[in-house]
Amino acid sequence: MALKRALKSNIQEMIEGLDKFNSDPKDGTTRILFTEPELKARNYIKEEMAKVGLSVREDAIGNIFATLEGSDPSLPVVWTGSHIDTVINAGKFDGMAGVVAGIEAARLIKEFGQKHKRNIEVLVYTSEEPTRFGLGCLGSRAMAGELSLDKAKELKDEEGNSLTEVLESLGYDLAEFDQIPVKQGGVFAAVELHIEQGAVLESLEVPIGIVESIAGPSSFEVSIAGKQSHAGGTPMNLRHDAFLACCEIALEAERLAKESASKDTVATVGRVEVLPNASNVISGEVYFSIDIRDSDYEVKSECIDNLMKFIEEVEEDRGLTIKVEKINDDQPTPSDQKIIKILEESCTNKEIRFHKMISGAFHDSMMVGKFAPIAMIFVPSKDGISHSPKEWSDYSDIARGTDILADTLLKLANE
Amino acid sequence: MALKRALKSNIQEMIEGLDKFNSDPKDGTTRILFTEPELKARNYIKEEMAKVGLSVREDAIGNIFATLEGSDPSLPVVWTGSHIDTVINAGKFDGMAGVVAGIEAARLIKEFGQKHKRNIEVLVYTSEEPTRFGLGCLGSRAMAGELSLDKAKELKDEEGNSLTEVLESLGYDLAEFDQIPVKQGGVFAAVELHIEQGAVLESLEVPIGIVESIAGPSSFEVSIAGKQSHAGGTPMNLRHDAFLACCEIALEAERLAKESASKDTVATVGRVEVLPNASNVISGEVYFSIDIRDSDYEVKSECIDNLMKFIEEVEEDRGLTIKVEKINDDQPTPSDQKIIKILEESCTNKEIRFHKMISGAFHDSMMVGKFAPIAMIFVPSKDGISHSPKEWSDYSDIARGTDILADTLLKLANE
Repeated sequence: MALKRALKSNIQEMIEGLDKFNSDPKDGTTRILFTEPELKARNYIKEEMAKVGLSVREDAIGNIFATLEGSDPSLPVVWTGSHIDTVINAGKFDGMAGVVAGIEAARLIKEFGQKHKRNIEVLVYTSEEPTRFGLGCLGSRAMAGELSLDKAKELKDEEGNSLTEVLESLGYDLAEFDQIPVKQGGVFAAVELHIEQGAVLESLEVPIGIVESIAGPSSFEVSIAGKQSHAGGTPMNLRHDAFLACCEIALEAERLAKESASKDTVATVGRVEVLPNASNVISGEVYFSIDIRDSDYEVKSECIDNLMKFIEEVEEDRGLTIKVEKINDDQPTPSDQKIIKILEESCTNKEIRFHKMISGAFHDSMMVGKFAPIAMIFVPSKDGISHSPKEWSDYSDIARGTDILADTLLKLANE
Repeated sequence: MALKRALKSNIQEMIEGLDKFNSDPKDGTTRILFTEPELKARNYIKEEMAKVGLSVREDAIGNIFATLEGSDPSLPVVWTGSHIDTVINAGKFDGMAGVVAGIEAARLIKEFGQKHKRNIEVLVYTSEEPTRFGLGCLGSRAMAGELSLDKAKELKDEEGNSLTEVLESLGYDLAEFDQIPVKQGGVFAAVELHIEQGAVLESLEVPIGIVESIAGPSSFEVSIAGKQSHAGGTPMNLRHDAFLACCEIALEAERLAKESASKDTVATVGRVEVLPNASNVISGEVYFSIDIRDSDYEVKSECIDNLMKFIEEVEEDRGLTIKVEKINDDQPTPSDQKIIKILEESCTNKEIRFHKMISGAFHDSMMVGKFAPIAMIFVPSKDGISHSPKEWSDYSDIARGTDILADTLLKLANE
């Protein structure tokens, strides 16, 4: 006797249900931490969790836990889950697919009827995206002990509200903030289903990705001070154009990533602000982000070192002042080989083809990996597009991933 | 007997007086066409014109004319003047210096007491900067017959108001719009004083520039459609990053300008908008401006042709869609040799050193040059900075330029 198969209609209903809570002015999904749509989405998802018989609680930073009790709740728990917040003008699958798959998997396990040993919990991690407070994985970061109450006080949104002020205004008890971190050994295993956000599975025509490692992201904020002047009156040899320095750096980051010793290195300049930003004025200031990721920390570090040297050369050559602030520089997170083995067996038994791969995007699992064995299931993204209204994953692919997830959670819960 | 010398205190008082009408949130000057500060600045300058005994009128697009009557008002008139609008976060001299110098020159000529033949008019041209409607030299362009009522209806500001709607709301009579163009021969000569907006005079330690030619500007709006996707999930070889294409184009424009056959070629990418502009998203769309200027139209055209070929290569190489819209492509405007000769004689008589040069920036004189003989007087810009709060020209240098202007206007008015 085996678990029943996940219902595509349940997956679709919950993903579309979540997507109603959305502040995107156009055709995409925008759901920013603790805004009205995000709060409504939390309530919606808690109701869905309760509907399938899970008992729901929240911690002091808003991480949601929905428990399916096992025969021995004293044993370390098995986790699954993801996030329901988004970047601006995003799609409706990134994060949400994993939460919805977790709820559907819990339903299948509950309806299976045979009591498993360990508690199984479906989680919603608070604010995986850095949209509101400039720092990602707030909930799972706090679980990993890397977001103290003091640091949470310092995190401000664009309107100057601190994370702690926002939490308090919503009734979260900051006195319980120090209870958020999870002890080593407290979680037996954590498996997150997520859309791939890339085109690898699609290009291979494989429906399931098993993530062997999550690339460690490094991010930097760069500011360039040049000399603002008139586009007509300033000969080329007298210019100190801040934007052109940014262009050189962005292209060098691309070159270094392409030519690095690791096939997984990626580098992106995604946010750029040019001042004064007028067609007839040479830019005097430019602010931009650099995001570099790799499955190989050494290769990434070398890539960053080379880029920093290049930035110094540009500063010298163009007579500018360039400041680089390191925001984060994370190690890659390897998946747990025991969980990978169960995932592989599950795919093999169900005759579903899979591909072992890295995750270029970071996920809450990266933080969870600091205190528990983790692994991830990827489902294909149409055209590899994510963080875009065009983001799409077939509901049948998510349902197939949910089958693997449910099977794996059940096995882990009985270990 | 000669004209008295211009009073530095008058120059300073009027420039500082104008600068009170300013919507800049920081330390610069922002005075955008037909906003409250610009309208107040118009009133202020009309009062200053009236104070020195000039009779003031406006045409249907808001060009201001202040007349010092000569003994034979039937003769073609002698003009001087500039503009009082600014780009965003600009300085207080660009344009204003020329208007103020014109008023002070008219005062000197009036107080000289000997009646000159031709009328002398001090002008304020409407919106030399393209700040509000995306097109520069609105007033002088209409005078040159190159801004029809139909085109004025099409010009929209960011809020969607057309130029004609704004004019009507302020009481300008659109029925008189077709009386704006100036007939060939109607203006005997037009001399504009302006700050250099470059560092040539300063580097030569020469206080007066005589402009032999105004570089012809060409401007383009470029839009790039790439593929918006996740910065982590998309391997380098699967990217279609719109911003990197913009970077390549901006750097190629710089290279082409630096290596062109003319020493005067300049190319600038000053305005850049990246979408969705998030650190963890590969840009899907970029919009930016290209501004290319030269004293040599052929060289400029070749430079533009090469840049367009390069843009096609980038489009092909990166798998993007790039659209280039030509906004304008103007011929350089040569100064009138007769006026230049008078300017040179005036400098020589006053023992003031001068340098003959081109103007890289465009000015209303470029439009006026289409229907009248023109020339320009430059005064030094500190550090060559303009279109910036750091823009500075010494009041004593502007006063010295005003002396040359007054002398030249008087000679022209008696020719």
